[in-house]
Amino acid sequence: MSGSTFGELFRVTNFGESHGPAIGCVIDGCPPGLALAEADIQPDLDRRRPGTSRHVTQRNEADAVEVVSGVFEGLTTGTPICLLIRNTDQRSKDYANLLDTFRPGHADYTYWRKYGHRDPRGGGRSSARLTAPMVAAGAVAKKWLRERHGTTFTGWMSALGEIAIPFEDAAQIALNAFFAPNAGIVPQLEAHMDALRKAGDSCGARIEVRASRMPAGLGEPLFDKLDADIAHAMMGINAVKGVEIGSGFGTVSERGSEHGDELTPEGFASNHAGGVLGGISTGQDLVVSLAIKPTSSIRLPRRSIDRAGQVTTVETHGRHDPCVGIRATPIAEAMLALVVMDHALRHRAQNGDVVHAVPAIAGSVAGSLPDSARG
Amino acid sequence: MSGSTFGELFRVTNFGESHGPAIGCVIDGCPPGLALAEADIQPDLDRRRPGTSRHVTQRNEADAVEVVSGVFEGLTTGTPICLLIRNTDQRSKDYANLLDTFRPGHADYTYWRKYGHRDPRGGGRSSARLTAPMVAAGAVAKKWLRERHGTTFTGWMSALGEIAIPFEDAAQIALNAFFAPNAGIVPQLEAHMDALRKAGDSCGARIEVRASRMPAGLGEPLFDKLDADIAHAMMGINAVKGVEIGSGFGTVSERGSEHGDELTPEGFASNHAGGVLGGISTGQDLVVSLAIKPTSSIRLPRRSIDRAGQVTTVETHGRHDPCVGIRATPIAEAMLALVVMDHALRHRAQNGDVVHAVPAIAGSVAGSLPDSARG
Amino acid sequence: MSGSTFGELFRVTNFGESHGPAIGCVIDGCPPGLALAEADIQPDLDRRRPGTSRHVTQRNEADAVEVVSGVFEGLTTGTPICLLIRNTDQRSKDYANLLDTFRPGHADYTYWRKYGHRDPRGGGRSSARLTAPMVAAGAVAKKWLRERHGTTFTGWMSALGEIAIPFEDAAQIALNAFFAPNAGIVPQLEAHMDALRKAGDSCGARIEVRASRMPAGLGEPLFDKLDADIAHAMMGINAVKGVEIGSGFGTVSERGSEHGDELTPEGFASNHAGGVLGGISTGQDLVVSLAIKPTSSIRLPRRSIDRAGQVTTVETHGRHDPCVGIRATPIAEAMLALVVMDHALRHRAQNGDVVHAVPAIAGSVAGSLPDSARG
Amino acid sequence: MSGSTFGELFRVTNFGESHGPAIGCVIDGCPPGLALAEADIQPDLDRRRPGTSRHVTQRNEADAVEVVSGVFEGLTTGTPICLLIRNTDQRSKDYANLLDTFRPGHADYTYWRKYGHRDPRGGGRSSARLTAPMVAAGAVAKKWLRERHGTTFTGWMSALGEIAIPFEDAAQIALNAFFAPNAGIVPQLEAHMDALRKAGDSCGARIEVRASRMPAGLGEPLFDKLDADIAHAMMGINAVKGVEIGSGFGTVSERGSEHGDELTPEGFASNHAGGVLGGISTGQDLVVSLAIKPTSSIRLPRRSIDRAGQVTTVETHGRHDPCVGIRATPIAEAMLALVVMDHALRHRAQNGDVVHAVPAIAGSVAGSLPDSARG
Repeated sequence: MSGSTFGELFRVTNFGESHGPAIGCVIDGCPPGLALAEADIQPDLDRRRPGTSRHVTQRNEADAVEVVSGVFEGLTTGTPICLLIRNTDQRSKDYANLLDTFRPGHADYTYWRKYGHRDPRGGGRSSARLTAPMVAAGAVAKKWLRERHGTTFTGWMSALGEIAIPFEDAAQIALNAFFAPNAGIVPQLEAHMDALRKAGDSCGARIEVRASRMPAGLGEPLFDKLDADIAHAMMGINAVKGVEIGSGFGTVSERGSEHGDELTPEGFASNHAGGVLGGISTGQDLVVSLAIKPTSSIRLPRRSIDRAGQVTTVETHGRHDPCVGIRATPIAEAMLALVVMDHALRHRAQNGDVVHAVPAIAGSVAGSLPDSARG
Repeated sequence: MSGSTFGELFRVTNFGESHGPAIGCVIDGCPPGLALAEADIQPDLDRRRPGTSRHVTQRNEADAVEVVSGVFEGLTTGTPICLLIRNTDQRSKDYANLLDTFRPGHADYTYWRKYGHRDPRGGGRSSARLTAPMVAAGAVAKKWLRERHGTTFTGWMSALGEIAIPFEDAAQIALNAFFAPNAGIVPQLEAHMDALRKAGDSCGARIEVRASRMPAGLGEPLFDKLDADIAHAMMGINAVKGVEIGSGFGTVSERGSEHGDELTPEGFASNHAGGVLGGISTGQDLVVSLAIKPTSSIRLPRRSIDRAGQVTTVETHGRHDPCVGIRATPIAEAMLALVVMDHALRHRAQNGDVVHAVPAIAGSVAGSLPDSARG
Repeated sequence: MSGSTFGELFRVTNFGESHGPAIGCVIDGCPPGLALAEADIQPDLDRRRPGTSRHVTQRNEADAVEVVSGVFEGLTTGTPICLLIRNTDQRSKDYANLLDTFRPGHADYTYWRKYGHRDPRGGGRSSARLTAPMVAAGAVAKKWLRERHGTTFTGWMSALGEIAIPFEDAAQIALNAFFAPNAGIVPQLEAHMDALRKAGDSCGARIEVRASRMPAGLGEPLFDKLDADIAHAMMGINAVKGVEIGSGFGTVSERGSEHGDELTPEGFASNHAGGVLGGISTGQDLVVSLAIKPTSSIRLPRRSIDRAGQVTTVETHGRHDPCVGIRATPIAEAMLALVVMDHALRHRAQNGDVVHAVPAIAGSVAGSLPDSARG
Repeated sequence: MSGSTFGELFRVTNFGESHGPAIGCVIDGCPPGLALAEADIQPDLDRRRPGTSRHVTQRNEADAVEVVSGVFEGLTTGTPICLLIRNTDQRSKDYANLLDTFRPGHADYTYWRKYGHRDPRGGGRSSARLTAPMVAAGAVAKKWLRERHGTTFTGWMSALGEIAIPFEDAAQIALNAFFAPNAGIVPQLEAHMDALRKAGDSCGARIEVRASRMPAGLGEPLFDKLDADIAHAMMGINAVKGVEIGSGFGTVSERGSEHGDELTPEGFASNHAGGVLGGISTGQDLVVSLAIKPTSSIRLPRRSIDRAGQVTTVETHGRHDPCVGIRATPIAEAMLALVVMDHALRHRAQNGDVVHAVPAIAGSVAGSLPDSARG
């Protein structure tokens, strides 16, 4: 209820702070019999890890995951899976002034108003570091969904600041520091980041994430619609300020004759819906887009106040991502996988006996990510 | 778990179908001692009611609410409040062909895949009619929040199709059929709707909704952030495809030096955050924007398939909103009120003992709706 | 969260007060495709109904159930099932003195301390009348479990005050006013009740309830053990003060060599466990026993205080059950069915893919209710 | 949903297995500002610890708790508190035959039917070792309740097998290996245990636990009644088969004129209710009694079957508690504290504004544990 647990049936409880001894999570509800080892989880953590290029924070964390429970002889037992990640580069600096000052754009002020007391070291609980356990949990969900339903998840950056990144080739995503599906644009992105860093400023980003080979029928009317739960998951990622499904804000100026995806025996003729109708998956690709705000920790001086309400100035030096959106791609994939996983279990709880004579038209003819693009 | 309950502590359970005998909801968790009568609820229902102008569905429903339980001698008792709304204009037509055919853009196909069986009359459970009980529940939340915290909620239409509606005067919102805060643009909106209806087509809309005089400190890290729960609530409204908080997708091209709202002893200097930092309310206005897709029921013929997977064509005649966004404003207000109400209770459960020597800087100097604009 | 919803996946939300216009419930999560009509529910309601013999309250309620939603053309759709029961015999007497006085053994004092305000008419929300919607919901669960798993539920009275009622013949349960599985003892029970009524006093009872042909594997370690959830359900019934599973308090003086049920290829050799090991069903009969306190409303004068804290005296005249345990049998069956139903769905959500080469040894050789005794 | 989380607002998520690297829990929802250190938790863990006398298992575990998160500079921050306990004496023996054989009275068979796969080492997840994290979490709840409300918790053994243990002096509880409030009976208990051990058998026990100086008004009608949640908590403790509140099964033969506790301006005249009326606390002592079954692991040979369904025999050698009830006292206290803590937060969420002109009559004149007896 205090918000550290995500999901209803595949429940992930997150704990830890940026500069405490460890962060981690407990997954309750994972189906038994899934082959699982650290090696299934570590690759996604490595994609999110700090310090992997000059464009992200230089904090040096191995982010090595330990499976503390829930696995016996290489298989999940159905009991809670505790995943532990030790913090190794906390840099125990003096944080007294951080405790007194509220950094603009950060949660310092709101945590203080809420709790009357907070851990200021590296943002404490509000740090984006707490997304690491979700990436780990997401890797477990991804594995089960891939093995059980063939579902895969692919995310990429579609805009860095004002630079739009046209989708060209999913194979490129893993080959550059920006998760850009486009090799040609990378030099421009690098130049943009170098200029920002020099200016002591930061910028926003747009991320897209898709789920392919989705089972039809997932999502619960009225309130836990699949898209509503996706919106909850995405807006809950640090720094996200907007979420779209399918045509998103483009629907405002669409006509009904254009937006409503026609059905054919071979599948849907288009995917403006982004894979969800009435809150329930159609079997088409889920299509999700996020807006991520610019990093709040910048070198340029900003006005603020302290705990006594007095005027002060904040300049943030040290290691920070000049665009927090860069490392958001594996996080968005993980959160989407967690939502789909939860709904797969919710769906079969109630509807496990539903059978259809006619197969689903999933594998729709348009609007899907090409197979070559799937993660 | 099957998604018909909204909220954690102020819980609203919704029931009914578009063409059944009644729709309604049960509110569990309402604080005791709130003065409550039907008259507190009916005005918001009347704002959402069909048949109030030529631009919305001509279905004729009184939407009269009955308080079945939870109130004794005019005060809430703390026990469940059941609100019942009888359906009176169901028009029991032949729906056999609706049962066989999947209308593009509707939930027909997905309900069928999920449940194997569905109530096709007027969309059954997927009908926007099921938002009426939420508007009723929202009225209860609004009343408590206004009396306890002074918080108020105001929504309006900011775009109808490609026509942007500049905010001019909140007093106008109640005076036209479009919830437009701008009298001058109404003739253009009317002409647009008349043309659409003539063409047998439909269009999308953008809605804005704000909460003013917000308590600071509401929202739960990590996953039930206030903005995450708002996104869940809004994306769960029928036809919503996108949600923004504060600058929303505009943040992609903002700089950190521009986005991060500076703090002053008089309040925040701007409100790009939309009233939420780190998932917790700052005390500034909550600023939320929604994209609503065009109505799927249109007169123009569309390709589809039937339950046997055979090709068919769908044309929808009869009474439908050509822009479902028009009646969405009171719904968005209600859902926002329900989220804030739930978090007000959640907050005091855990943090009821937190005291501050220094008052909050809520009542910020910029980015708030002017007092004249508040609902 | 305010306690009016029972269950996690098969969720029943209860509303109403003893003397309001109606009571009822909303079931969310019922599997689709179940044939369901009022006639499936009414018989259990009739078993619980007041006024059926001189040994229970003479309040005259038809307790006729209306299915308001969730059923289309005779089948559940998977959407919420609202069940409504109109109150018809509220007798709107003067209750002013009830509002001021706290009746010993009743919830008057505690509701007042909790909410500061309460509906005193007939006990308001604390009335045993609110078990009627649970009996109705339980009938839906029973039907699904019987059709899907063959599971059946049988309850009876095993003691009335100090009179033990030996189990002789389940066929007798339906044939007397006491739910006694023993025809010979009925005259003694009647004489006991007549004497109590004459004395203006009341007595307690012991109820047993069983589930037969249980699926093995239901129940969730650690905290939502099947027996823990049964205890929660049973202790939540009005007036229940004790719950036992299997040997219950008899285990205190048992030896391990006696208590631990041996396993054989034909099944368990005994059922001291009451059908649950480690919180998970064995496939044997669930064996549950309840202690129900004597009715608190009695004619004999009792000392009490009023809202101002002043000394007063309470005598309760009018229509009351002199032993509330008499009508508790169908309630206990319903609550047990609701727990099993919920866990059947929870189990398949997580473990729907588990297959076993060796069949379960359910259908155990000892400790089961004979087939002739099953409801 | 898979049952590893306890509580709604003060939520404890438990993880680990008997013979894995570590066990622990995550507490979400603890109020901020509570002074907390390992030293506040360790004493209760030490009371539950194995190896402290010859009458309990000789497994040697330090059960040293580590606070991994949620505390900054000695105060809780309001964010999740992760408590970790390393397993140090797992004795990695051959468990192949345990994997094949189902021990009578154990969860071996039911885990296998549920999950198809289990960790057999030391009972894996079904081990009573998993109560240690609950004792740790309970210590946090106890501390907050004592500081905020003055509430204290005291448990003791009231019967060992057929030997009743009369309550004489609470000060004795801490001074013997049995948590017996009676020094004179200890030699008899020791002789009983020695004989049992010699015989290779085990016995049951009865435990009582009380909460004193309870706030009035805690508990939620209808389903999350305080006593219902206590029953859930207690029946969820390993080996518990029965739960009573107040008079418990004694109510069956009580009269209404005897059971219903009269109210006086000085407090209730008796406490047959055990501190709960209508599911809500009266302010009197909570009075709870548990039946604990005899240990299932005994040296005497028992019949069983293996995974192929073939007949086999089980004899359990090694280190086991001959009466698991002995170490249950601190566990029962912890679970009771967790229930009260959760309801304290739930209560103020909804009813935080309720004020009373007349003080509660808590501090009742009869039925309370004497001050000298309070923990």
